[in-house]
Amino acid sequence: MAASGSGETYKPAFSDKFRTEFEGLLRWRRDVRRFRRDAVKADTLNHLLELADLAPSVGNSQPWRIVAVESAAKRASVVSSFEAENAAAASAYDDEKAAQYRQLKLAGLKEAPVHLAVFSEPNPDQGHGLGRMTMPETLAYSTVSMIHTFWLAARTEGIGVGWVSILDPEKIGEILEVDPKWQFVAYLCVGYPEEEHIDPELERARWQSRSPLDARLFRR
Amino acid sequence: MAASGSGETYKPAFSDKFRTEFEGLLRWRRDVRRFRRDAVKADTLNHLLELADLAPSVGNSQPWRIVAVESAAKRASVVSSFEAENAAAASAYDDEKAAQYRQLKLAGLKEAPVHLAVFSEPNPDQGHGLGRMTMPETLAYSTVSMIHTFWLAARTEGIGVGWVSILDPEKIGEILEVDPKWQFVAYLCVGYPEEEHIDPELERARWQSRSPLDARLFRR
Repeated sequence: MAASGSGETYKPAFSDKFRTEFEGLLRWRRDVRRFRRDAVKADTLNHLLELADLAPSVGNSQPWRIVAVESAAKRASVVSSFEAENAAAASAYDDEKAAQYRQLKLAGLKEAPVHLAVFSEPNPDQGHGLGRMTMPETLAYSTVSMIHTFWLAARTEGIGVGWVSILDPEKIGEILEVDPKWQFVAYLCVGYPEEEHIDPELERARWQSRSPLDARLFRR
Repeated sequence: MAASGSGETYKPAFSDKFRTEFEGLLRWRRDVRRFRRDAVKADTLNHLLELADLAPSVGNSQPWRIVAVESAAKRASVVSSFEAENAAAASAYDDEKAAQYRQLKLAGLKEAPVHLAVFSEPNPDQGHGLGRMTMPETLAYSTVSMIHTFWLAARTEGIGVGWVSILDPEKIGEILEVDPKWQFVAYLCVGYPEEEHIDPELERARWQSRSPLDARLFRR
């Protein structure tokens, strides 16, 4: 990034090389479920959270609430919730698909050294309500932007993130004893990946391939 | 990004220089409401959408549906919806705050050369339902990840994005004549910014500053 001026006239300019590497970052970001047990340094994690905190938010409300889950007992309760919901999800498929589902590794809760539960505050003072009167869901959307920023930033450090959603949101709030008004958005497993892949695990496991963009683009 | 192997053993490695520039990208990404009227090349826009399409999605479902709004009549109807909802939002504040609200420029709908309406398919076949049984909102969250990826990718090309949420979601679906089941997630104004800023417009206008991260971090 090169400056072409200063102060108000400064204009960040990104190079072709940066753009190529940024595309590499997007292509190599993965939902990671296979973690090494090596710790993530506290300073590194904190830096990543500071970067994630730069994410866009409706009305500048910064509604994300991030809980580092460190208690072994609470982690075990989260694992139980995952196992119960994952078994229930499997039973909802017919026999063949259920068998395939049960083969998938869908979370790295037991191996990941860092667990982050992410919630969204549904009525923050910050932002004075701007931008969310017709669409209150933009608060949770802001929180998702924070998560996605964290995910990409982590990847630049060689750290993987796995987003676990096969959980009972209410139960997670109870386990973690957070403000019952907070909306549960995501449970993140964070750590160094065992393997690097450019293709999603669900694609390699023949559960679901990506499809061409054209099917998702429309003109009016 | 440097290779340290090939095929399955290839491991992308990001340099300190890349990380510094990536942090610059996060710091200089802005919600843009002041656009130049210069066109964005179709090839550039398409490339950005291809990059955005690399975003994570629950079960690899890719639920985003992107509508390029090109019709002048439809754009005018969107502007009307914005103006009505923006006036209603202003009246919800007390006198002083309402006056301040009315001074804010909250959208660049009339100047931005590219308009994208983004919806989420609430029941995609793709993904076979994986990961969303207890949290169907993860579909819309996936769509938000796509939008955020687009936003960052655009910024690397010097292109600004403004997310407009002061709209009636149902009305936008009707104006654009899309599948009524689609969930409206965002209306994006896209184009070259008139000005570059490292601080949010809402901060400069003294509507809402960002606050320190510590208030949003918890341990359990």
